[in-house]
Amino acid sequence: MQSELTEKILAGDVRAAARLMRGIEDDSPGAIDELKNLYAHTGRSYIVGITGAPGVGKSTLLDALITSFRQRKLTIGVVAVDPTSPYSGGALLGDRIRMANHTLDKEVFIRSLASRGWSGGLARATLSFIHVLDAMGKDLILVEAVGSGQGEVDIGRMADTTIVVLSPGAGDEIQMMKAGILEAADIFVINKADKEGAENLRIQLEQVLSLAPHSSYDWKSPILLTAVINRIGIEEVTQAIFDHKQYLISTMKIEQRRKQRAMFELIEVIEHSLRTKINNILKAKDFQDLGEKLAVKQIDPYSAAENMMGTTLSRNQTTHRQRK
Amino acid sequence: MQSELTEKILAGDVRAAARLMRGIEDDSPGAIDELKNLYAHTGRSYIVGITGAPGVGKSTLLDALITSFRQRKLTIGVVAVDPTSPYSGGALLGDRIRMANHTLDKEVFIRSLASRGWSGGLARATLSFIHVLDAMGKDLILVEAVGSGQGEVDIGRMADTTIVVLSPGAGDEIQMMKAGILEAADIFVINKADKEGAENLRIQLEQVLSLAPHSSYDWKSPILLTAVINRIGIEEVTQAIFDHKQYLISTMKIEQRRKQRAMFELIEVIEHSLRTKINNILKAKDFQDLGEKLAVKQIDPYSAAENMMGTTLSRNQTTHRQRK
Repeated sequence: MQSELTEKILAGDVRAAARLMRGIEDDSPGAIDELKNLYAHTGRSYIVGITGAPGVGKSTLLDALITSFRQRKLTIGVVAVDPTSPYSGGALLGDRIRMANHTLDKEVFIRSLASRGWSGGLARATLSFIHVLDAMGKDLILVEAVGSGQGEVDIGRMADTTIVVLSPGAGDEIQMMKAGILEAADIFVINKADKEGAENLRIQLEQVLSLAPHSSYDWKSPILLTAVINRIGIEEVTQAIFDHKQYLISTMKIEQRRKQRAMFELIEVIEHSLRTKINNILKAKDFQDLGEKLAVKQIDPYSAAENMMGTTLSRNQTTHRQRK
Repeated sequence: MQSELTEKILAGDVRAAARLMRGIEDDSPGAIDELKNLYAHTGRSYIVGITGAPGVGKSTLLDALITSFRQRKLTIGVVAVDPTSPYSGGALLGDRIRMANHTLDKEVFIRSLASRGWSGGLARATLSFIHVLDAMGKDLILVEAVGSGQGEVDIGRMADTTIVVLSPGAGDEIQMMKAGILEAADIFVINKADKEGAENLRIQLEQVLSLAPHSSYDWKSPILLTAVINRIGIEEVTQAIFDHKQYLISTMKIEQRRKQRAMFELIEVIEHSLRTKINNILKAKDFQDLGEKLAVKQIDPYSAAENMMGTTLSRNQTTHRQRK
């Protein structure tokens, strides 16, 4: 059964999409119904992840890539998960005005995900946003996520092509290596290449990559130097994205990636719903009263947990049920 | 309904208790049944937690306290959660032989909890072990748990009296302060007081404590200096435990602590059972097959999660049910 909202989103309606995205952020059960409806209509967009430490220039690169893709008449969706992104309202006014260029372009739909204060479920919400943009018929979906190795959204598991952005002097290369972010990179971009240390960073990165164990995966992640503010190197990044896409398609590795992404999403959905369940239990009014009852041994913690969760933890109760 | 095992444990049977503890470690549903039976018979033991960084001398202090309590004819249960504890088999042979003294004493029942490799549920298992010893009729239960601020078992939430052991030169005082372990202390023990730096550590600790915001809780945690290996200061620690017990009873704060502990256990039980649920789902055979189905959009991740969890995430299904 197709809902009205789903049909509007499939027709590319921006307001309908924004409404569903709000529902996703609010964790509304109605939003899940719509996502179920949409899911069969997804899988056509190509997803590009852009990650890197704060300050390396992810947002400016994103901005430049949008312009580059628009020149090729591709329609674009953007999910900004980075709290420092100007899209998420985290940066200076100057940045925000610059980004506003694209908001006048009907074929560019930009949404940010407020990652601050979320107790979890950020990956699930990001994937849901991607599905909405996908169902809208966007050719390309760009996901910007901060990645400094502190347990942020795992962009490498969501994107078809993952771009890791570094810049000289940011000093977090080693942390990123530790966190396995480098392994996730299909394309490296060393931004601010006009600054001192860019060439050194490239040599260092090449050394690290040459030490990495070779996998069966035979794509050699290119290292591209850009100076995005001066529009240097953008075309090369755009071309590398298309090359990588072509590689994934010709080797049929794209199916494998998408299967892994689907399983990742399933795990995220399960984890998120269990987490929500716990939070609801802890907020429940009778949870406080239970403390009294437990303290005076009127009830035991296992029976109390069973009552709250509506499930059985022990063997006895199952037996009782079977006897009935 | 009282089971045979429960009755044996209530009669103080060591083999029966050991059997249930194995069941707890194996996470068997049968063990939960027994714990439900036992729970009403618990709450008589006094629980003392001993925590501190590895190498400060927790186990030797524990050993000395057991001797001291036995001289007072008190029966003792011990739960060693510390993986470096000789009770858990983590230390030198010499330590293990020394500890073996008490294993010949029928009134001292010592069990270790293997904390290595546990994905979680350690607090729940520790509390369950405490309940078993409590039901056996032990006067005192001593829980030894490593605490270096790395997310170990939160002993302060389980014990009536918490002893934090420090030693000069261990160098982890600041980490413990960060981790809030100092706040949990009812008694401080600076062990190896014959070593250089002990007096300095005491002064430093007093300064930190004087800076801490004063709570309504008007017990002033004493700082005791010991040299356990030379049996110096043990009686003072024993006396401080009795003083603190007397304080908790006379101010009725013991009920408050026990209520908080009961609620902590309830949360742990809920978290642990949800965690187990996730693990079972991920191990399920059909989980791998789902990846294929998801990738080709034969099913959506929300419906797949609902199938695996046997619950409803969306609104639609509830509505359908109501319509029936």
